[in-house]
Amino acid sequence: MLRAGICGANGYTGIELLRILDLHPGITVSRLFSNSTAGKNIKEIYPYLSDKYDLKLELFDSSQLSDLDVIFLALPHGQTHSMMSALLAYPNLKIIDLSADFRIKNNQKYEQYYNVSHQSVHLLPEIPLGFPEINRQQIKNAQAVANPGCYATSVILGLYPLAKEGLVSHRVIIDSKSGVTGAGRSLKESSLYCEANESISAYNTNTHRHIPEMEEALGIDVLFSPHLTPMNRGILSSMYLQNEKHFNKEDILAIFRQYYQNEPFIKIMDPLPNPSTKWVRHTNNCCISVVVTEDTIIVFSAIDNLIKGASGQAVQNMNLLCGFDETTALKALPTYI
Amino acid sequence: MLRAGICGANGYTGIELLRILDLHPGITVSRLFSNSTAGKNIKEIYPYLSDKYDLKLELFDSSQLSDLDVIFLALPHGQTHSMMSALLAYPNLKIIDLSADFRIKNNQKYEQYYNVSHQSVHLLPEIPLGFPEINRQQIKNAQAVANPGCYATSVILGLYPLAKEGLVSHRVIIDSKSGVTGAGRSLKESSLYCEANESISAYNTNTHRHIPEMEEALGIDVLFSPHLTPMNRGILSSMYLQNEKHFNKEDILAIFRQYYQNEPFIKIMDPLPNPSTKWVRHTNNCCISVVVTEDTIIVFSAIDNLIKGASGQAVQNMNLLCGFDETTALKALPTYI
Amino acid sequence: MLRAGICGANGYTGIELLRILDLHPGITVSRLFSNSTAGKNIKEIYPYLSDKYDLKLELFDSSQLSDLDVIFLALPHGQTHSMMSALLAYPNLKIIDLSADFRIKNNQKYEQYYNVSHQSVHLLPEIPLGFPEINRQQIKNAQAVANPGCYATSVILGLYPLAKEGLVSHRVIIDSKSGVTGAGRSLKESSLYCEANESISAYNTNTHRHIPEMEEALGIDVLFSPHLTPMNRGILSSMYLQNEKHFNKEDILAIFRQYYQNEPFIKIMDPLPNPSTKWVRHTNNCCISVVVTEDTIIVFSAIDNLIKGASGQAVQNMNLLCGFDETTALKALPTYI
Amino acid sequence: MLRAGICGANGYTGIELLRILDLHPGITVSRLFSNSTAGKNIKEIYPYLSDKYDLKLELFDSSQLSDLDVIFLALPHGQTHSMMSALLAYPNLKIIDLSADFRIKNNQKYEQYYNVSHQSVHLLPEIPLGFPEINRQQIKNAQAVANPGCYATSVILGLYPLAKEGLVSHRVIIDSKSGVTGAGRSLKESSLYCEANESISAYNTNTHRHIPEMEEALGIDVLFSPHLTPMNRGILSSMYLQNEKHFNKEDILAIFRQYYQNEPFIKIMDPLPNPSTKWVRHTNNCCISVVVTEDTIIVFSAIDNLIKGASGQAVQNMNLLCGFDETTALKALPTYI
Repeated sequence: MLRAGICGANGYTGIELLRILDLHPGITVSRLFSNSTAGKNIKEIYPYLSDKYDLKLELFDSSQLSDLDVIFLALPHGQTHSMMSALLAYPNLKIIDLSADFRIKNNQKYEQYYNVSHQSVHLLPEIPLGFPEINRQQIKNAQAVANPGCYATSVILGLYPLAKEGLVSHRVIIDSKSGVTGAGRSLKESSLYCEANESISAYNTNTHRHIPEMEEALGIDVLFSPHLTPMNRGILSSMYLQNEKHFNKEDILAIFRQYYQNEPFIKIMDPLPNPSTKWVRHTNNCCISVVVTEDTIIVFSAIDNLIKGASGQAVQNMNLLCGFDETTALKALPTYI
Repeated sequence: MLRAGICGANGYTGIELLRILDLHPGITVSRLFSNSTAGKNIKEIYPYLSDKYDLKLELFDSSQLSDLDVIFLALPHGQTHSMMSALLAYPNLKIIDLSADFRIKNNQKYEQYYNVSHQSVHLLPEIPLGFPEINRQQIKNAQAVANPGCYATSVILGLYPLAKEGLVSHRVIIDSKSGVTGAGRSLKESSLYCEANESISAYNTNTHRHIPEMEEALGIDVLFSPHLTPMNRGILSSMYLQNEKHFNKEDILAIFRQYYQNEPFIKIMDPLPNPSTKWVRHTNNCCISVVVTEDTIIVFSAIDNLIKGASGQAVQNMNLLCGFDETTALKALPTYI
Repeated sequence: MLRAGICGANGYTGIELLRILDLHPGITVSRLFSNSTAGKNIKEIYPYLSDKYDLKLELFDSSQLSDLDVIFLALPHGQTHSMMSALLAYPNLKIIDLSADFRIKNNQKYEQYYNVSHQSVHLLPEIPLGFPEINRQQIKNAQAVANPGCYATSVILGLYPLAKEGLVSHRVIIDSKSGVTGAGRSLKESSLYCEANESISAYNTNTHRHIPEMEEALGIDVLFSPHLTPMNRGILSSMYLQNEKHFNKEDILAIFRQYYQNEPFIKIMDPLPNPSTKWVRHTNNCCISVVVTEDTIIVFSAIDNLIKGASGQAVQNMNLLCGFDETTALKALPTYI
Repeated sequence: MLRAGICGANGYTGIELLRILDLHPGITVSRLFSNSTAGKNIKEIYPYLSDKYDLKLELFDSSQLSDLDVIFLALPHGQTHSMMSALLAYPNLKIIDLSADFRIKNNQKYEQYYNVSHQSVHLLPEIPLGFPEINRQQIKNAQAVANPGCYATSVILGLYPLAKEGLVSHRVIIDSKSGVTGAGRSLKESSLYCEANESISAYNTNTHRHIPEMEEALGIDVLFSPHLTPMNRGILSSMYLQNEKHFNKEDILAIFRQYYQNEPFIKIMDPLPNPSTKWVRHTNNCCISVVVTEDTIIVFSAIDNLIKGASGQAVQNMNLLCGFDETTALKALPTYI
């Protein structure tokens, strides 16, 4: 039984990690860390955990982790880049970083979007992006992975096969809709119930921080337009590409099937309808559908932002890092309702 | 005091008409019609109306309307085209048709999208589209108007100045998000609370019936992609155009201001942020903002689908038809919460 | 045209006052005050107000109000008791205090529940509770009123006739359900969208601060059990009384009709069904229904917590204080959807 | 591996059974039945099941079940009472009836509340109510169980220890709040998104069909007042009892602990706060808390109406009937968000 720690355990990504790992037969969560709520017991914050997790939240100290086999870092951006060397020094510690710090390999782009000077540029090449559908083998051989962003995951999964096949030479228009958990559990007015409820709005149009991650992974330019949607969970990315080669729907589906036929978490909706985000709720799945006109290819990609877009993909990556079956703890059907 | 009748009074459009007209100093709603619930009293269906409207729903009979000055037709599509001649025969009756039957002037397009053979093609030219921001004078001179569709209103208002100025030569990509009232009050599984709640999905991609209305009013081609959003009301249309002339934001805003400077219901969000649909909730307003990059113009247009997208615009049109001030009964601030 | 100021204008009660007063033909809102956001323009916080209200939020200074005819005090509890003398010194200023400071006439109860030592006990008798259905005449003769609490309003309206008729000698069990606006717009975790959404919970059982207000106004004992409900607005109070005299439903309804027959905002649901909070949404109405068994009388009372429970009742009180028709600006039908 | 069939598979109870059983290592769902949608494939109705369940819905024929080891009957009330004999004739078939037909042992009460003449009164004694916390041993020895109703489960679990200890001699006031899935997936106006959203209402006050079930299981009288709450899932029952013996909180908690100390699914919230329904979402748990005053005992009981209130308890019962560990497939933590 491997012992795991969760850093940032009091946030939504943290408690989703706890919920998923609770289903994992090879993992025990033995330590929880939180800088903002250190000293409290996790059950004071989340009383429903009371009879299963009686753990005190600790201040994170990277020099005191020798009793852990796995560490999940669900921290704000700009914190892990300076502590990664210390973590890698534990020879048997596997590290899953859920922040953006090691996702973008071009550190100027990182600094431009995150306004942070990266302290471990030399480590960027050895910490792969944790995208099993793209670089499974690299992850298996790594000690640490950079878990992708939620929007980036929905977009990259929906465009990767087309980009790889050279179908994307123009800027792709991406209109994404995310539930409110995407903003985390921090206190801000736009996250209040009465502010977010019963309304939809666009924000950070063409300036969102997930843009460099998408562009680097896909090798293309994107125009990214996210929207805050009145629901807890889910991302639906609607992506509009020029159909330069006048492919038909069957051509496009054939490409998706070729790339994803053995992928356990990718569901090509064919002949079924365009996905609703509830079809992936509480799962690590990504549902993809396409609509094709003579001049436009439209790809819809739906994920649960907290699972495939964060904690589920983190466990998928951990499974690869630690030699578990990749789908362990990630097999449940969607909750739908 | 003019006497108005509402046909289709038991649906959401019908009760919104009733709510708005209740604020109108020059109108009394004296008759309600409904084919599905004729014989019932409106207060049996909507008990909150009990002390204000004690009216029995009647079967609609176009030969018995001589006591009315105004008739609102909130009927399913395909019903008014065959009764319009009879209605126009009342010399003093003003008619606001909220169905699609007279919106599309190209009757082949109408038949293609609605699968109905139009029985009154000869009347199409004399019943203007009820779009005051575009053809106010025509409406003032008409006896009947065709009230535009909800999605079409949000899209046309957001693109009209740019289309008129010749900035739209390519197909515009329109990603719209609508609340569930857009589907009306009819019983279907996708409108159930537990089905629509907590999820977003795309539907009718590139096949939606509002497409010919948009294309005809704007003289452009559109790729229209609507989404069902978990909220009662509101449409946000996010529209992506090629910026062929490399205009900057100020250039684009200047065009919008030129066209809409005297429009009482159009709000240009400058320098304010992109609109949230709650900024127009329960109002006849349309909030518009733009984001401009070197190669793309993005227009966001937000309306309340039941007000500016249906019953409010119908009252605005009635005000013009009947000689009231155009904003009568339509001046309240948004409810926001 | 009277000039009104709103103190605490940036909160939900404040913007509801602004929205309602915007419909009032005899009032102009000329000044807005907010201690937390002073210096900002109201349209920066609520962009939808941009073309109607271009007002800077001021720090409140009770010595600089001579240009106002009316002041609404939508402040946190514990602030107005020390400034009331200064306000009353303006001979022509009418004052509507929406805080709890002058609601409870027993100042020990006030201090027990609010943990504040009241600085103006001598003023308590001359500032009536602003409950027009109970003490309309007193309000008309006053310079200032204490606007009741939201839960208290729903409960008092539902029990007042029965208490007055001596039907309530036992402790009444009151199970109330409130929307999330009841918690205001302040930043706390329980008000976050993802915390409040899709869940209901009880809180402050038998300790809520509205208890002394109910007990004092009704002269009875209550067991009050409030619940946080996943919706923006609305309070439904379900009240369970012993039916000591074995009255039947018609007996009880007759009492309600006797007390409320001329009340413009009270709607007795008879023979119609129990109210849903949406039947009063965005109105100053209170819908009441009763279910009677041999040993129990059940009263359901529904209000909009921000209107009849706060800003609407404040305007109703202002209408009385200033000599306007009591229903001015408060006549719109419910929004329902 | 036992083979299970689900009758009524297209409803919410049906798909929840499918979701839970998918996690069960000893069960394969091999047949699905639905009278209303027979002939369709389950994946046409629920596309998210497409890659896991490729099963055609069959018309139910009680004479063709010899290939099944377990049958779940998620049918409308009034259907299973006439087919039970045929089902019991399969010697190795275990039967879980989720309808009301065998819950109420007093068949006059059943006929009074359900307006159905029971065809199998002789079988009522041998089909125990499936309430493991009350009659686990009986269930283990049975071939068939009557799975309790959702409201009844929340109420019985919250009152059983107190009723058994003789603390309940008066009528208990029960104010319950349920999510909209409680109404199932059938098409009715009150279940439409725009009708149920953003509003709470009382219904079936003191006439709801779960009353005889509660009264029979507890041996007490109840006044039951259910409310429709704008959320998908969850029941919170707030129960108000006279505190005749003037017990304090610790006395009451001691009784609950005594009865439930070994119960895997009952969570006594002590010293933690009153439960929110999200603390049990997607789990088979019941969270209970108490508030005690000198004259009143208040018990809050929260369940997921589709899990402990239906499909989860059905699987718990099946585990007992079939000799599996009682918690199999029911161990996941709540989803919370």
